[in-house]
Amino acid sequence: MIRPVLFLTDYGLADEFVGVCHAVMARVAPEARVLDLAHEIRRGDVLAGAVALASVVPYAPPEAIYLAVVDPEVGTDRRAVAIGAGGAKLVGPDNGVLSLAADSLGGIDRAVAIDPDRVASGPVSATFHGRDVFAPAAAMLAAGAALADLGAEIDPASVKRVAVEDPAVGAGRVDTVVLGVDRFGNLRLAARPEHLGRAGLTDPLSVVVAGGALPIRLVRTFADLGPDELGLLEDSGGWLAVVRNGSGAAEALGIEPYDRVTLSVRDAAIG
Amino acid sequence: MIRPVLFLTDYGLADEFVGVCHAVMARVAPEARVLDLAHEIRRGDVLAGAVALASVVPYAPPEAIYLAVVDPEVGTDRRAVAIGAGGAKLVGPDNGVLSLAADSLGGIDRAVAIDPDRVASGPVSATFHGRDVFAPAAAMLAAGAALADLGAEIDPASVKRVAVEDPAVGAGRVDTVVLGVDRFGNLRLAARPEHLGRAGLTDPLSVVVAGGALPIRLVRTFADLGPDELGLLEDSGGWLAVVRNGSGAAEALGIEPYDRVTLSVRDAAIG
Amino acid sequence: MIRPVLFLTDYGLADEFVGVCHAVMARVAPEARVLDLAHEIRRGDVLAGAVALASVVPYAPPEAIYLAVVDPEVGTDRRAVAIGAGGAKLVGPDNGVLSLAADSLGGIDRAVAIDPDRVASGPVSATFHGRDVFAPAAAMLAAGAALADLGAEIDPASVKRVAVEDPAVGAGRVDTVVLGVDRFGNLRLAARPEHLGRAGLTDPLSVVVAGGALPIRLVRTFADLGPDELGLLEDSGGWLAVVRNGSGAAEALGIEPYDRVTLSVRDAAIG
Repeated sequence: MIRPVLFLTDYGLADEFVGVCHAVMARVAPEARVLDLAHEIRRGDVLAGAVALASVVPYAPPEAIYLAVVDPEVGTDRRAVAIGAGGAKLVGPDNGVLSLAADSLGGIDRAVAIDPDRVASGPVSATFHGRDVFAPAAAMLAAGAALADLGAEIDPASVKRVAVEDPAVGAGRVDTVVLGVDRFGNLRLAARPEHLGRAGLTDPLSVVVAGGALPIRLVRTFADLGPDELGLLEDSGGWLAVVRNGSGAAEALGIEPYDRVTLSVRDAAIG
Repeated sequence: MIRPVLFLTDYGLADEFVGVCHAVMARVAPEARVLDLAHEIRRGDVLAGAVALASVVPYAPPEAIYLAVVDPEVGTDRRAVAIGAGGAKLVGPDNGVLSLAADSLGGIDRAVAIDPDRVASGPVSATFHGRDVFAPAAAMLAAGAALADLGAEIDPASVKRVAVEDPAVGAGRVDTVVLGVDRFGNLRLAARPEHLGRAGLTDPLSVVVAGGALPIRLVRTFADLGPDELGLLEDSGGWLAVVRNGSGAAEALGIEPYDRVTLSVRDAAIG
Repeated sequence: MIRPVLFLTDYGLADEFVGVCHAVMARVAPEARVLDLAHEIRRGDVLAGAVALASVVPYAPPEAIYLAVVDPEVGTDRRAVAIGAGGAKLVGPDNGVLSLAADSLGGIDRAVAIDPDRVASGPVSATFHGRDVFAPAAAMLAAGAALADLGAEIDPASVKRVAVEDPAVGAGRVDTVVLGVDRFGNLRLAARPEHLGRAGLTDPLSVVVAGGALPIRLVRTFADLGPDELGLLEDSGGWLAVVRNGSGAAEALGIEPYDRVTLSVRDAAIG
């Protein structure tokens, strides 16, 4: 079986960084199918990479190889890891970028610390382990190598984790953070519809940001919104998202990833 | 036969939206070749998606599956459709995005309304039918499913259409609109060289936009232009395009898609 | 053997230009694996394309087909060429974009001038030879055609070349140019660590740009830098690069590709 490789980075597509990783994989595993998941993860934003990677798991082939490189500590002594979870395997730096996907796959069954000497075809650079370590390791797995071929076994519990901050739920309010902003300016919050329920929140609602409180309406989809209206919906990943009909919500609210946001009962004064 | 899937959206490449659709197709049709046509169609611009999709038809494998998702009405009761046209098949929302490509393929032979229950592997979200409905439907077709496997037959004449507005041709003038602006700032007009002929227009010409009239020269290719000179050429899709040697024509003229443009005999005053 | 095609252009990903080339190749060589190397090469920057293409050679399958289209003279009488070098083949306009990769592959063994009539499936446009000439030529090679099937043999020495300007090395200084700026704002210089050695340069150093002299520190990787600190490191291609922890070096220094830069002994006054 040739396993597909699902590839995610923060390298961007402006340069040849992603392309050369594809070239490496074509050399190591000529038959493998490599799919680009996303390459515009915010530079060095490990949590954003972890959330994006995990969001793909329910839809991906169960035997996939996940290759995720968001690696601000490249060239330091942070480990490179390969993980078995469910029927899938995951490859990346040991900084938590794989951890949420591994959770979605049922948890880590086995893990190894990748030995660069076992996977690199030449010298390993200080700055581009995507090309020199991670892509060849993923391609070896795609071509049928076992985890043990890549390096020594490590304790699965030692693999680093990241976590999405739980919202603070009070009576009539949910305090949370912006997990990310998509191309359309939609704001994904680190909260789910169940948190609204626990806070007893229904329409009419306000969203409170640094700039003040604004009315927002619970909707099901974009087409439910009037011009320039703010809406709160369950997005395709099951998160609450602040969306807007017109220019994006992020621009309209002056919001960036990890800014704090409160959802609350609407104050009559702003209705 | 494994048919290639040609994939076009307005999702952009900043996020994992396109990537997760690829993952879905890899699960449903592990052997299928999926090609990205374009993912930066202007948000919700169904006509732009339709024009881009149709422009690929003459160059694509005749048995291709076209998967086009520009879907501003996602989550409403707009239909999802799959179409047979010539030897090809097309999948997308029923809003006209498939219609110009179907025309280029010789017209619709058969059409079905996709039943989400027949294609989705789980719950169908309100906002992401690319992942939940269209990608799995296209992958099923790529793997050999028949149109009838996706849903009930519908009248081909009921499938929605879009149309490029015909230019108004008068003596010595062609009034038209900007169909799109490419990465280089080239302005594609909704007019073809034959319209110049019918208007009796040859060099010297002017292009008239909101900001005034500017001299423009009929040329064959970019290299025919002097520095900062405006040119009018037949682009690779057979449309007239306003191009510029230097910064793009769109920026120089302050023009956006669907703005109105007139080509006319050059007024001696501006020559 | 189906050879993989490694594909590089300055077309960008905003439009369907790259996608239609993929469609062409899927029609001509349905079994071929086509990998995107980079499509955001600066418009018309042949040297940048040549450097990016050459940087992939050490990592790519030895039998690869390189398809590189940075073609500001499209539609003129510049030749289209196909080259054999080592076990690889290269296809593109005859403007030097292939020359550095061919050097890395050991030099040109054979070359042909592509005859559009032998590769095009229809009329050849004046502006889009990527679609009409180069993509079908590369796909024919991928599917097993010989160079001689594409056109008449030409003298390998007649194929155009580009060259990276050598730095001027003096006692305590290296004068060079910026080869390119990546997504992260890192500045790749047209100089290598050996040039520092020949100039007798070690820490403390300055980088001198139009705006003045700034302290810069020799480092091994990004994580060695403090906040907003400038570093000089050997990048993944073996070039010296000016990098910064924080906003990119290019923005901080107000620098663009081909601007001049001097590395020198640090003046006590600015240390």
